[in-house]
Amino acid sequence: MTGNKSRGHNFIQALLLLLTCLQKCQSSPHLHNSEPILGVFKEISKYSDIAQQIIDLAVYGKAQNRSYERLALFTDTIGNRVSGSKNLDLAIKYMYNALTKDGLVNVHLEPVKIPHWVRGKESAVMLQPRNHTLSILGLGSSVGTPPGGIEAEVLVVESFEELKKKASEAKGKIVVYNQPFVSYGETVAYRASGASEAAKVGAVASLIRSVTPFSINSPHTGWQWYQPGVAQIPTACITIEDAQMMGRMAHRGQRIVVRLTMGAQTLPDVDSFNTVAEIRGSKHPEQVVLLSGHLDSWDVGQGAMDDGGGAVISWEALSIVKDLGLRPKRTLRAVLWSAEEPGGVGAAQYFQQHKANISNFDLVMESDLGTFRPLGLQFTGSDKARAIMKEVMKLLAPINVTSLERNGEGTDINMWMQAGVPGASLHTADQRYFWFHHSDGDTMSVQNPEEMNLCSAVWAVVAYVVADLEEMLPR
Amino acid sequence: MTGNKSRGHNFIQALLLLLTCLQKCQSSPHLHNSEPILGVFKEISKYSDIAQQIIDLAVYGKAQNRSYERLALFTDTIGNRVSGSKNLDLAIKYMYNALTKDGLVNVHLEPVKIPHWVRGKESAVMLQPRNHTLSILGLGSSVGTPPGGIEAEVLVVESFEELKKKASEAKGKIVVYNQPFVSYGETVAYRASGASEAAKVGAVASLIRSVTPFSINSPHTGWQWYQPGVAQIPTACITIEDAQMMGRMAHRGQRIVVRLTMGAQTLPDVDSFNTVAEIRGSKHPEQVVLLSGHLDSWDVGQGAMDDGGGAVISWEALSIVKDLGLRPKRTLRAVLWSAEEPGGVGAAQYFQQHKANISNFDLVMESDLGTFRPLGLQFTGSDKARAIMKEVMKLLAPINVTSLERNGEGTDINMWMQAGVPGASLHTADQRYFWFHHSDGDTMSVQNPEEMNLCSAVWAVVAYVVADLEEMLPR
Repeated sequence: MTGNKSRGHNFIQALLLLLTCLQKCQSSPHLHNSEPILGVFKEISKYSDIAQQIIDLAVYGKAQNRSYERLALFTDTIGNRVSGSKNLDLAIKYMYNALTKDGLVNVHLEPVKIPHWVRGKESAVMLQPRNHTLSILGLGSSVGTPPGGIEAEVLVVESFEELKKKASEAKGKIVVYNQPFVSYGETVAYRASGASEAAKVGAVASLIRSVTPFSINSPHTGWQWYQPGVAQIPTACITIEDAQMMGRMAHRGQRIVVRLTMGAQTLPDVDSFNTVAEIRGSKHPEQVVLLSGHLDSWDVGQGAMDDGGGAVISWEALSIVKDLGLRPKRTLRAVLWSAEEPGGVGAAQYFQQHKANISNFDLVMESDLGTFRPLGLQFTGSDKARAIMKEVMKLLAPINVTSLERNGEGTDINMWMQAGVPGASLHTADQRYFWFHHSDGDTMSVQNPEEMNLCSAVWAVVAYVVADLEEMLPR
Repeated sequence: MTGNKSRGHNFIQALLLLLTCLQKCQSSPHLHNSEPILGVFKEISKYSDIAQQIIDLAVYGKAQNRSYERLALFTDTIGNRVSGSKNLDLAIKYMYNALTKDGLVNVHLEPVKIPHWVRGKESAVMLQPRNHTLSILGLGSSVGTPPGGIEAEVLVVESFEELKKKASEAKGKIVVYNQPFVSYGETVAYRASGASEAAKVGAVASLIRSVTPFSINSPHTGWQWYQPGVAQIPTACITIEDAQMMGRMAHRGQRIVVRLTMGAQTLPDVDSFNTVAEIRGSKHPEQVVLLSGHLDSWDVGQGAMDDGGGAVISWEALSIVKDLGLRPKRTLRAVLWSAEEPGGVGAAQYFQQHKANISNFDLVMESDLGTFRPLGLQFTGSDKARAIMKEVMKLLAPINVTSLERNGEGTDINMWMQAGVPGASLHTADQRYFWFHHSDGDTMSVQNPEEMNLCSAVWAVVAYVVADLEEMLPR
């Protein structure tokens, strides 16, 4: 997953979502009129045999470990796949071929334009109070430094508030944010906006403590957003360890000097594709349950967890349905997004390209918080749709994955949900997700075949049953 | 802590220890004659007030957080301190000055000769089946490669047994050990002997999966030992992630090619020092309770955990005793070892220099497994000594650190224990110790002030009380 685009943007998104919910509450028939919904409950209960078949195939049968092996082969073969890179092109070709070979239908690529930011060579050295090489990763969209780097004294702060208080000390300095980790959602603001906030008070560069609760001196990259009208200064993440050390030095009154050198640059947008494959619906082929994950990753690690796993289980769910000879009334569509990390760029264009057909989108699903041990789904939709989804989740009782939380989310499906389409994201036991997120630790070593089997089963049962019900989910 | 020197050496050490224990069992008066020991128990119980004073000072009083702050200032100022480096010289000078300034007595440096291995520039790239940079750390004492590096096909094995089976395939290859982590004690054999075992079957280099149960793509270095008469080939550690990936590739039958470049070399031994400070005994100043940790570290991270913490609490224990105006009957001697990591080199010379006085060594203590939340001590000694130590540990009931396990150990005190001197090592809740060990993750960020307060209290109470008892610990 990416970071949030900007705090302003997020706020507007949240507001839209709230308005949509309020509209829904006012306009949708409430559950008091329970007869129609009892009919759906009865309909859903008849899927218990099919759900068990899917589970048997995915968890114990010939599809056992297949999603793990597909993901391992994919990420071992291609490696990481940052937006705009040759590797992302290779990944799209790889998946196009794999989906075709798997016998899925309507396999095709939908053109999008995506950002092309390149890291270049980068390094940072603390020169005072002693010589020490800092582990860094430049942040996506950062400008570079002059070729000889920027050498400047450091101002360490623990919050935006502290930066404001010390604004008069920031001019000409490198601002180091040593903010504590509270939660990803809250703390990522420092990565997203730290450079512009530092530039506003005259800093020449900013270094952000990596947004993670745990580190083995591991830097975590991610996209950042320059604010309009503010000077663009180079920015990179540093490790928890180095941020804390500079924090201690500053508290002791020591003068810290760092030289930051970054070859980063933003090249013109490039052509890319969202990758699509389907099982066509038998009765309402124009109506769609969409399953998705993103193919791009950061340019570190293998991009196994973020988000190779989400992409692969979206493919795997279709394979499972196909292998069982099932064909739901509506179309199952796997979409493997391009350029999620720069802010859902491929998905935003997909929304523009397909929103005219919004009434045909039954449910949009995204997995982008890891394919670890599944707990259930996070769901956004009307009360009636939620009641139906709760019933669908009961079909997953044999593997104990029946939870239906609120707040379905995902950079790549948010626009659909804001426009009223029910949305679901995979909810997993992801305590360690942010330990590896956007770092060299995002590799196959964090994935587990048994856990991926369960994720694939959840994804396939939910998508198939929803796509096969007599009626689309109520909005 | 270092790894074990070699498997042969270890076996001999274990045998010696066993023989010593057997001797002890036969020669020492057993506990049946309980009168004298009951006297000691009574004597120990009278120390409960002093123990409480020590605890109050270390945990709640003016020494609160002092060991953490001393360690932070030391490691932030000096950084890491590998054997033979200028940084280790600086560290010794720093500590000499700090111990003197603290008002301890007989602060002095005892000359030793220590290894001088330098890493030089190093890199490893997987060239086939795709291009991928491997995170490596050359292993201590490894030879370098030719300047252009060694480019060779890889043979992946998961054990020495598999290497033997595949011996005919190893010639001219780089052997990659992808051994699972069982325990440090068991698995470190691959780091210690992997190069020589690979060389025996004709390999040109070896890469060892880092000896750790957890990784964020983090390589862990350590010393390795070439076997006499076997070709010396370059050797480095790689990450769990890369070892597992090459394992998967090999299982798929893919050809893997790696280029390894290492500028490592062993220079002539250099002069160094064990650093000593004391509180002189009031009645038997020639008799000694020795507290120790090592000042050298690996050339990564800060060497905070391995073993800055052990060195600093050994200093801190003396400070606490001094601050309380206490003076035990016997001398408390803090020894900060030089060159533990290459195999207890400084400590071995100390043993040679002082073994003539072995009868005056009451108890040797070492902390080299982390200064985390203390659980108690691991102790090696006669049954009678153990019974006395158990009673001493009861004085630590106020902070719930009363456990006395068997198998006191520590590279730097083993020789004394093998020669019959009672030995104790600090036992802490160190579940994550090997996550950071010998990696860039060994920094102040893994240390906690409250935990270090407790460690200091344990160290001070045990050392003071044992040094102040009427009789030395029975052997």
